[in-house]
Amino acid sequence: MDRSTSGLSQRLAEAGQSHLLHFWDELNPEAQAELTLDLQGMDFQEINGFFKNAMEMSSSNKDEKMDARMEPVPREVLGSVTRDRECLKDWELGGLQCISQSKVAALLLAGGQGTRLGVSYPKGMYDVGLPSHKTLFQIQAERILKLQELAEQKHKTKCCIPWYIMTSGRTMESTMEFFSRHSYFGLDKKNVIFFQQGMLPAMDYQGKIILENKGKLSMAPDGNGGLYRALGNQGIMEDMEQRGIQFIHVYCVDNILVKVADPSFIGFCVGKKADCGAKVVEKTNPTEAVGVVCKVDGFYQVVEYSEITLATAEKRSSDGRLMFNAGNVANHFFSFSFLKDIVQKHEPQLQHHVAQKKIPYVDSHGQLIKPDKPNGIKMEKFVFDIFQFAKTFVVYEVLREDEFSPLKNADSQDGKDTPTTARHALMSLHHRWVLNAGGHFIDENGTRVPAIPRDGAAGSVTDDGSRNLKDGTDLPIKCEISPLVSYGGEGLEELVKGQEFHPTLMIDEKGVHQLVKNGI
Amino acid sequence: MDRSTSGLSQRLAEAGQSHLLHFWDELNPEAQAELTLDLQGMDFQEINGFFKNAMEMSSSNKDEKMDARMEPVPREVLGSVTRDRECLKDWELGGLQCISQSKVAALLLAGGQGTRLGVSYPKGMYDVGLPSHKTLFQIQAERILKLQELAEQKHKTKCCIPWYIMTSGRTMESTMEFFSRHSYFGLDKKNVIFFQQGMLPAMDYQGKIILENKGKLSMAPDGNGGLYRALGNQGIMEDMEQRGIQFIHVYCVDNILVKVADPSFIGFCVGKKADCGAKVVEKTNPTEAVGVVCKVDGFYQVVEYSEITLATAEKRSSDGRLMFNAGNVANHFFSFSFLKDIVQKHEPQLQHHVAQKKIPYVDSHGQLIKPDKPNGIKMEKFVFDIFQFAKTFVVYEVLREDEFSPLKNADSQDGKDTPTTARHALMSLHHRWVLNAGGHFIDENGTRVPAIPRDGAAGSVTDDGSRNLKDGTDLPIKCEISPLVSYGGEGLEELVKGQEFHPTLMIDEKGVHQLVKNGI
Repeated sequence: MDRSTSGLSQRLAEAGQSHLLHFWDELNPEAQAELTLDLQGMDFQEINGFFKNAMEMSSSNKDEKMDARMEPVPREVLGSVTRDRECLKDWELGGLQCISQSKVAALLLAGGQGTRLGVSYPKGMYDVGLPSHKTLFQIQAERILKLQELAEQKHKTKCCIPWYIMTSGRTMESTMEFFSRHSYFGLDKKNVIFFQQGMLPAMDYQGKIILENKGKLSMAPDGNGGLYRALGNQGIMEDMEQRGIQFIHVYCVDNILVKVADPSFIGFCVGKKADCGAKVVEKTNPTEAVGVVCKVDGFYQVVEYSEITLATAEKRSSDGRLMFNAGNVANHFFSFSFLKDIVQKHEPQLQHHVAQKKIPYVDSHGQLIKPDKPNGIKMEKFVFDIFQFAKTFVVYEVLREDEFSPLKNADSQDGKDTPTTARHALMSLHHRWVLNAGGHFIDENGTRVPAIPRDGAAGSVTDDGSRNLKDGTDLPIKCEISPLVSYGGEGLEELVKGQEFHPTLMIDEKGVHQLVKNGI
Repeated sequence: MDRSTSGLSQRLAEAGQSHLLHFWDELNPEAQAELTLDLQGMDFQEINGFFKNAMEMSSSNKDEKMDARMEPVPREVLGSVTRDRECLKDWELGGLQCISQSKVAALLLAGGQGTRLGVSYPKGMYDVGLPSHKTLFQIQAERILKLQELAEQKHKTKCCIPWYIMTSGRTMESTMEFFSRHSYFGLDKKNVIFFQQGMLPAMDYQGKIILENKGKLSMAPDGNGGLYRALGNQGIMEDMEQRGIQFIHVYCVDNILVKVADPSFIGFCVGKKADCGAKVVEKTNPTEAVGVVCKVDGFYQVVEYSEITLATAEKRSSDGRLMFNAGNVANHFFSFSFLKDIVQKHEPQLQHHVAQKKIPYVDSHGQLIKPDKPNGIKMEKFVFDIFQFAKTFVVYEVLREDEFSPLKNADSQDGKDTPTTARHALMSLHHRWVLNAGGHFIDENGTRVPAIPRDGAAGSVTDDGSRNLKDGTDLPIKCEISPLVSYGGEGLEELVKGQEFHPTLMIDEKGVHQLVKNGI
């Protein structure tokens, strides 16, 4: 490298990061060029500043004093599908009206890879093994299509729900290629807008950026809170403004049940004139690993499960429910004006959270080391850290069985939040849709299957109590309804009422299909 | 067989069960003798009567009309650990007093084998893999010992909680041998009383008893409701009366968290002058496979999950909870006088429930057939069917995380109610006991572990987010406290307050032990 002309080594020296060129002479020209490109795109002073702030924040003993400052979500800002049933219809109508006016956008956080799932491709491309074998991306795309259709039917006007998809450096290319290959699942490609969050380097405890090999920095996406910076530096806010977007539904990719641009949620938030809203599920087990939405020093925030003491987690209100029971599920509503305010004004105020990690690195001799205890940090911003800036914040409580089944782990692990649990959750929901629309399921003997079947199958159990299904881990009632047919269970009476079905039942835009068990 | 002298063939003919001797001439003398013995012990007229009644009951279309007749448990008969917190201490003291007066007995339903678990021995002998490797029997025995000790300490008088253990023909011998081999886990053997429930034959749809091979009837235990007949015909009621037992806690073997002779439950029931009480957990998911305690036509009963329609399962009260949310967990309180009434008067009125089964049988050619669809029924009485006879019935609602973690399935299945979930439930509970008593856990770096640790371990996560535990399916905080040290979390301050522990932490009667990870 021509060090006198690039200025790069000067910048590195000023920032105390010169070690990044330690192996320069050992790199071939191609690797040298790549490293130069990586380094040129980075603002080291800024990164050093992040590090300094992040370390100061994480070392302060805020956890112990946190509990005394926490207050639960007041009833006035809460909307609940179980406790405000009389309002649900109005909220839904209100939200659908906003959708019909093309004021609503969906924004998908899809920067993560499926590493814990055991795959190297973006999570949205995962097939959990439904009868249709649809990926998460396709399911979400079809929910958008159906919702547009429902709004159009009701309001007799064509409308559009633009879909903003945030990827990261690791997922952008494969995601865009996947969508292109599948023709955007029927959506108009100009209404599917991809953008990319930033990356930050991993750093050791002395603030030195870590090299993961001789010519490569150890980089990671900057957290789902990197959303706000990305919205600003890739023209997304301008795009929204052009389209007249007033309300944005932000959600993450790995919830198979997610109601994309949920009209009820939107209608509730808009009715409350909220600038910011969080969808939650009720936390019933004190030690559930879910963050809770609450007030701290009068401002709304999410307290992470690793930050809460047991005493606080176990506190109960007079009605017997957990006091801090608003389980955060990374599902938010923002008004456009609020989001603009964040992007243009508050984003730099968002603190980086520090995660202590075991980061593979090259030591000074060039040896690749995989540490067995944490040797550095990753810095991330969190999407919910903007709650504190909201003037009108609301919370919308929904049912897990209807709206939340995350996909986190591979099937070989402890059976929690896996492809199996996700698949079961969706089929169980659709099974209930059919029953509630007046349909029935029967077994191979023609006997009606109970709504909650006995373990093992539709009515018949082997003598030793074992399951008689080909795949012992699957549900007795397999049922899948395409989002193109129904968004949330509506509109099924004409298809199923008074009828009896053999599982597996699939309903899609081509019709009603009952699949023979072995033929799946 | 000398048919003219035995009278057996006459009885069989009168009962229409002569086919049971179809293969008589093919049996060797030993097999003939065994078959004779089996047949002589059976009252075929009675069994035919059971069949006739059972088939009539199960064919009536009661399910559809059931929903209209169901009412939820009224608040007045409910005691709740979350909603009646101010009463808990008094209930506990009241129950402990009864225990101190030797008025309380525990009664364990242990007739089942661990078939679904994948073992051929009684479930109580199962080792879920705790650090101590204690079996369910041992854990329950030690809870009884500790409770006796707590009552003695409080009331300065020796007392006894007799332990009645109901086995079935399949489990009696191995269970008694197991207890003997382990010296009754420290209990006085005269206070551990075994008795045996009856068996009933499987029958085909025409009411013919099924032969499982040429010389053997297909038999099964007569359901946990066979308890009442067994109490009567094996002198158990007399034994209780002799001992001055006034209150009986009936529970089933496969709940690792079961609070045997729970003083709070007993104190609550006695305080309400209840003759019958059911311990429940709150059902929050409409399609959870748990029966619900409710009123039907003004009488208390359990409606099984396979009997409830979806519409009823999904109904909610004004407070947002499920209307039918009293999840039955086979954990009951009976006054002695009520139990005596049942045994002496009402037992014959209890209906047999019919389970349609695929029952292996020999056909008329002597071929062993394993049917692929149900070919017959098993008849069982259910322990909760006596609720209807109670004059004063109460319901006691407790927390799952503290009291209910059933063991039903082997670990290879869908991750629900397995040895792993049972083990985790107990260790998680004991972890919380330590924290609530003022103890702390630290990781290998000496850093305090959060009450709800981040996925993967006590504070440190590998770069790709995977767990860094040797056994990826186990908990970060392994903690086990012997029941001999604490029955329900009490008495731990002096052992743990202000101290820091490395998991695995074991506290037993010998002291406090911290085990090196690899040394477990």
